[in-house]
Amino acid sequence: MMQTPAILDQLAAIVGPSGLVTGDELRSRPAAWTRPSEPCAALALVRPRDTEETARVVKACAEAGVSIVPRGGATGLVDGILCENDQITLSTERMTGIAPVDPLSMTVVAGSGATVEAVQNAARAAGLFFPLDLGARGSATVGGTISTNAGGLRVLRYGMMREMVLGLEAVLADGTILSSMRPLIKNNTGLDLKQLFLGTEGTLGIVTQAVLRLRPEPAGYVTALVACPGVDDGARLLRAAQSAFQGRVSSFEGLWPDFYRLMTKPGRATPPLGPDYPFYAIIEVECVPEETDRFVDLLDRLMGEGTVLDAALASSEEQRQAMWRIRDRVENMNADGIERAFDVSVPLDRMDGYVRDALARMAAIPGCRAVVYGHIGDNNLHWNTTDLDAAGNEAIDAAIYAPLAELNGSVSAEHGIGLMKRSKLKLSRSPEEIATMRLVKRALDPDNRLNPGKVF
Amino acid sequence: MMQTPAILDQLAAIVGPSGLVTGDELRSRPAAWTRPSEPCAALALVRPRDTEETARVVKACAEAGVSIVPRGGATGLVDGILCENDQITLSTERMTGIAPVDPLSMTVVAGSGATVEAVQNAARAAGLFFPLDLGARGSATVGGTISTNAGGLRVLRYGMMREMVLGLEAVLADGTILSSMRPLIKNNTGLDLKQLFLGTEGTLGIVTQAVLRLRPEPAGYVTALVACPGVDDGARLLRAAQSAFQGRVSSFEGLWPDFYRLMTKPGRATPPLGPDYPFYAIIEVECVPEETDRFVDLLDRLMGEGTVLDAALASSEEQRQAMWRIRDRVENMNADGIERAFDVSVPLDRMDGYVRDALARMAAIPGCRAVVYGHIGDNNLHWNTTDLDAAGNEAIDAAIYAPLAELNGSVSAEHGIGLMKRSKLKLSRSPEEIATMRLVKRALDPDNRLNPGKVF
Repeated sequence: MMQTPAILDQLAAIVGPSGLVTGDELRSRPAAWTRPSEPCAALALVRPRDTEETARVVKACAEAGVSIVPRGGATGLVDGILCENDQITLSTERMTGIAPVDPLSMTVVAGSGATVEAVQNAARAAGLFFPLDLGARGSATVGGTISTNAGGLRVLRYGMMREMVLGLEAVLADGTILSSMRPLIKNNTGLDLKQLFLGTEGTLGIVTQAVLRLRPEPAGYVTALVACPGVDDGARLLRAAQSAFQGRVSSFEGLWPDFYRLMTKPGRATPPLGPDYPFYAIIEVECVPEETDRFVDLLDRLMGEGTVLDAALASSEEQRQAMWRIRDRVENMNADGIERAFDVSVPLDRMDGYVRDALARMAAIPGCRAVVYGHIGDNNLHWNTTDLDAAGNEAIDAAIYAPLAELNGSVSAEHGIGLMKRSKLKLSRSPEEIATMRLVKRALDPDNRLNPGKVF
Repeated sequence: MMQTPAILDQLAAIVGPSGLVTGDELRSRPAAWTRPSEPCAALALVRPRDTEETARVVKACAEAGVSIVPRGGATGLVDGILCENDQITLSTERMTGIAPVDPLSMTVVAGSGATVEAVQNAARAAGLFFPLDLGARGSATVGGTISTNAGGLRVLRYGMMREMVLGLEAVLADGTILSSMRPLIKNNTGLDLKQLFLGTEGTLGIVTQAVLRLRPEPAGYVTALVACPGVDDGARLLRAAQSAFQGRVSSFEGLWPDFYRLMTKPGRATPPLGPDYPFYAIIEVECVPEETDRFVDLLDRLMGEGTVLDAALASSEEQRQAMWRIRDRVENMNADGIERAFDVSVPLDRMDGYVRDALARMAAIPGCRAVVYGHIGDNNLHWNTTDLDAAGNEAIDAAIYAPLAELNGSVSAEHGIGLMKRSKLKLSRSPEEIATMRLVKRALDPDNRLNPGKVF
């Protein structure tokens, strides 16, 4: 029988026997979202109950020279939680506490293992609203969405996770507890330390809890599917709507025609507009019902000017949901063999040229099909493509990623870098930027023990 | 005649003779906003024309072992630009360029020396809106407001400068140019480097230009002065208004009675409401004129519930401006001997107790008068007090600052730390937080050449 490494006994002493997961129970957990049938390879999974235990775990690992891979809801798309067999994975799954909502400050304190949905529910129960929303809401955690600076469906109106975190607590690589849990909107006292942990994928510290900012619940929505001559006209519509409704456009999703046609195939979502327009958008505005007329007037005016070609208004919640299904049910495309997902950013004024160019490049790749859609008001495009052989996939990657450096775009809008996009980082970040990130990493984690090998 | 240090010749060679300011011309510039009659003490003021020249200046200083104090519009309130006589002060005053507004992306690129007002004007000329606004708008610069993470009058609705910067370019301590000028809302590719320069007061790099996010121009405003039983009821009014108008409350300024009475003394602003209420607030909502009735209904309902005691609506732009004068003309209090200004943050649910406690402490200090007001929706309180002798001022400082640590507040909401609040930093930041800031400082500026002695 193999000898148990001493570190496991030490960890069990800290978190208790039920806090340490090994063997079959550990192997039954997937390595990552993208590898559902590959077992987690870590030496062990440790699940501390609070910040103190987390700090003791990190310290013990540091002293033993063992590196740590933090694990939240395991719904990330870039293999940020993938482990080697000599690493400990630290799960936040027992730090799920949510304190009572403070209705006056409109804030809530949540453990890093609390799910996005649990925070949404706690806010709603207090008559408030936690705006972060994404498909994985039932599994994705506060800690995970901080570490990846999650975006999702309402960024246009409420920003990314970065804008929702007022304070946080993290454990540094040497076990130091860094507590910055002030529920303040304004606090200009030097470097804003929480930024070190937002979007850095657990490479600089392990987040254990956070103070989150809540908002009033939206009063209602008006939702339309709109057809335009192109994405530039879509951008004009967006600007006009932002102006008319004072920034209350909560979603603006661009759908290029191949995507629209695929998602409205017979048996899928019902198409509210014909299939032959050059560009579609779902636009949703937060407003009271009395404002619907003003929205219709706006669309009429833009139709007169040629910015909008056609439009369908959702006249019931049922119709609204049906419209959103055109955008959301992307897994439907698996049946068409369109399985590879991409997440990039492009400045809005360069988007039209970028999409045309990338589509043309991919049309020249034998067997390649590609569709494109996304949160265009946030510069964020998603591509879905066929999964070809290595050479074919490389050609697809080149068509999608290579133009981004020149266009001042980004290889990752909201998914992060993790392990999967590490080789693409240099397309979005200059050598000086990467060197500066490394300087900060070395300062905070000189022995490279926290999620080593991710991002860089 | 004293020999000119060699570094001055080197700098003149980089920026040209007109780029180097010494002697009487330099001494005619004030040391800092708070010291208008004290001449700038620096060895020389250097004003590079662009990022390249800035990098060469920084490199030359690094090689000569000379430290640099960055200087923007010189309107900061915490002596962040104060110089020793062996330091070079680097002014951004020749980097004032503003590129054409991009109307589709709603962004603009501005040099760090461009004033806030110039950016506002450029945005307005393109039918857009740059939301940062503060009294010093005509002098305060893009670089200065980035370095101090400026707040001001519209934080509640648009956030601080941090939320308006999409990308920036900075020169690091060794002369490296760190360019992150992407006009992207979403860009999850590792550490968000711009955060290193936002609010760090020039200690980690010198900002030379930035990509700023613009917004649609507000459609109009409804503005009221409201009296409430206390600040907690004020907070309830704020929450109700945010809910009814979907987050469009653009200002919510709390005025405690002594402040209100002082600002509405005969010869000053006309008081729209009587002087004896326990708490006043100016509330302003961005909306179209048709929404005024809904606002009045809200106030009526809250009056019925006792949350609001009385209210006066501004029924013309003239009345609106008159209402704002009650809040803005704080320099009027100088005539009453109330000259010392404070800027702190307190969680909204602790504000009532904090104010009562601090007022009681100050009432016990002989000769002390104190008034309080502020952006309470942002947790931000301003105190103005009499200027006493050293012991008296120390007692005032203690009354205002000492309770903040316990309350999870901040010794600086929007002014920063600079030199003036350095000794107070430990009331807002734990030893671990300060140590982590120092780690980052040492990583980026190991020889402590950029604004040494500030913040820490």
